[in-house]
Amino acid sequence: MAKKALGPAMLELVAAVEEALDRLGEKGAVPLLVGCSGGADSLALVAATAVVAQRREVLARALVIDHGLQDDSDAVARKAATRAERLGLPTDIVAVTVVPDGTGPEASARTARHAALAEVADALGAIVLLGHTLDDQAETVLLGLARGSGARSLSGMAPARDVFVRPFLGVRREVTEAACAELDTKFWRDPHNDDLGYARVRVRKKVMPMLEAQLGPGIAEALARTAVMLRDDTQVLDDLAAKAIPDGVLTDRELSVAELPKEQALRRRILRRWLLAHGAAEPAYTQVKAVDSLITDWHGQKWIEVSGLRVGRRGGRLAVMTD
Amino acid sequence: MAKKALGPAMLELVAAVEEALDRLGEKGAVPLLVGCSGGADSLALVAATAVVAQRREVLARALVIDHGLQDDSDAVARKAATRAERLGLPTDIVAVTVVPDGTGPEASARTARHAALAEVADALGAIVLLGHTLDDQAETVLLGLARGSGARSLSGMAPARDVFVRPFLGVRREVTEAACAELDTKFWRDPHNDDLGYARVRVRKKVMPMLEAQLGPGIAEALARTAVMLRDDTQVLDDLAAKAIPDGVLTDRELSVAELPKEQALRRRILRRWLLAHGAAEPAYTQVKAVDSLITDWHGQKWIEVSGLRVGRRGGRLAVMTD
Repeated sequence: MAKKALGPAMLELVAAVEEALDRLGEKGAVPLLVGCSGGADSLALVAATAVVAQRREVLARALVIDHGLQDDSDAVARKAATRAERLGLPTDIVAVTVVPDGTGPEASARTARHAALAEVADALGAIVLLGHTLDDQAETVLLGLARGSGARSLSGMAPARDVFVRPFLGVRREVTEAACAELDTKFWRDPHNDDLGYARVRVRKKVMPMLEAQLGPGIAEALARTAVMLRDDTQVLDDLAAKAIPDGVLTDRELSVAELPKEQALRRRILRRWLLAHGAAEPAYTQVKAVDSLITDWHGQKWIEVSGLRVGRRGGRLAVMTD
Repeated sequence: MAKKALGPAMLELVAAVEEALDRLGEKGAVPLLVGCSGGADSLALVAATAVVAQRREVLARALVIDHGLQDDSDAVARKAATRAERLGLPTDIVAVTVVPDGTGPEASARTARHAALAEVADALGAIVLLGHTLDDQAETVLLGLARGSGARSLSGMAPARDVFVRPFLGVRREVTEAACAELDTKFWRDPHNDDLGYARVRVRKKVMPMLEAQLGPGIAEALARTAVMLRDDTQVLDDLAAKAIPDGVLTDRELSVAELPKEQALRRRILRRWLLAHGAAEPAYTQVKAVDSLITDWHGQKWIEVSGLRVGRRGGRLAVMTD
C-alpha cells in the first residue's frame, strides 16, 4: 500500500482493530489471518490489519475462500486476492467443498469457510479476523428475535470466540465502504446480497429501513447494543448453570430433580445442555419447557418427545428413555 | 351473565385466568378487581373473571377509569361500566386527573390509572387483573428493542408484579375479540389505537405486519416468548447483583471498586442502581458504560456526567461528586 496519510474511515477501522487486539491481551500478540471475501468489509479489514500489523510488528496474511458455489467463483476469488495483496497483505486462496448438511446453503458455506480458516490459522499459530460489521450484527439479532429463543439467539455474533475475532462489530458498514473509497480500491458485491429469497437479505433491505422509518433512527445501534448486553448476561447465566450441574453430570441419562436449581432461567439452560448431550437437535423453547413441566407440573404424565429423544420422569429423576 | 355454555374463546380465557391465579398460590385467593377500559381485551377479562370468581367463590368487581382526556370520556366510561355489569361484575367508575409528568401522555395516563386501581384494590384487599394480551406484550418488546437497553427493556410487561396481574399475556388479541362476539357484547375501539403519531400504534399497524410478511408468521409469539425468557434471566441477574452489593450500600456516595463483581453483566446492574439511588434519571447504557470505564479503563480521566450527576474516581472508589 502506498505510504500516505490515512483517511477518516481508515483511521476508525485501524482503531477498531487495535482495540480488538488490546482486548485479547496476550492472545492478540500473535500472527493475524484475515478472512477475505473481496467485499468492502473484508477488504477494508485487510487494509486496516496491514497498518496494525506493521505498527505492532506481527505477521499478517489474508485468506480468500473459494466456495466453488458459482461458475465464476475462482475468478472472484483471484480478484479478491489481487486486491487484498495490493492493500498490503500476502494472500492465499483455498478452495473448499461445501457439503450440504441440512442447515441451509448459507450455514453450510460458513461451516466450510470457518473450518478452512481455522485450519490455516492453526498452522500459522494465528487468530482469524473477520469483517462483520455493526449492521451484520443488527441483522443477526433481528433474525434471532424472529426465532424467539432467548438471550442466546439475541446475543448475535461473538466479538471473540475460539480463534475467531470480529473487530468491526461496533463499526457501521458504510465506514468500510468509505474506507475502500479512501483506498481507491474496488470491491466485490455478492449478487446473493440482493436475493430476497434469503431472510438475511430481507432483513437488510426491507426490515431495517422500515424499522428506522417507524421507530426512529439508531435501530441498528440499539440492536447491536442489545447483543453486547445479552452476551454478557448469557455468559454469567451459562457459568452459573454449569456450576450447578457440571458437564460431567450431563452425560448421565438420568438427572436428579432435587439437584436442579429452582431458578427457571438456570434450569432451562441445564435441560437444554442435557438434551443436547443426549443427541437431541437444538431443542426449541417449547420443548425444553415441556421437559421442565415434568418438574414444575408433575402429575404422572407420559414421556415428552424432543427431536427424537423421549424424556420421562421416574420418581425423583428425569430420564432419557431407551426405546 | 346468562347461564349458557361457554364458547371456545371464552373457554381459553377462563383457563388463562384460572392459570394466572393458580400461579399466585395463596396470593390468588383474594378478591379480584378487573381494570376495564371498555375495549375487547378488558371486557373479555371481565367476563372470564366473572366465571372464575363464581367457581372459586371469591368476590370480584370491575373498575373503569375515566381519564378525562377526551370530551366524551365520561360517556365512554359509563358505556364500559354498563357492559361490564352486563358481563357479570359489579362495576364502579373512578375519575382521575392525569398530571403531565414529562413521560408522555400514554405513560402519564397509565401512572394515574395504576394509582387509582391500586388504591381501590388496597381498600378491597384485592389484586388487580389487567387485560394486556400477547400482542400487547410483543409490541412492548419491539418498543424496548428500539431503545436497546438490554434484557430489562426486552422483558416486557410483568405477568405479576405488586398487586397487578396480567392473565392474558399468553393469549392472542383476536381471542378476546372472538370472546366478545361469543358473548354478544359490543366493545369500545379507542380512536388513539389508529393514531400513527404513537410509536405503539406504528408497531401494531406497520411494524408487526411487515415483520410477519418478511420473516414468517409466529413473530408475535416469538417476541412474547423472548419476554418470558429474558424476565427469568433478569430476575436471576438482578438477585445476584443485589447480593453482591446490597441496597443499603448503594446509598453511599462512594463505591469501592474492589468490591464490585468482575462480571460486566452484574457491574452494569449495580452501577445503574447506584446512579438511580443518587437521583439520576434512568441512565442510558452508554452512560453506565462510561461510568464503568472508570473501572475498566482508568487512566486518570475526569468525571463523567450522567443526567445531572457527576461521577468520578478517587483512588480505589467511584464517587458521586458534589458541585
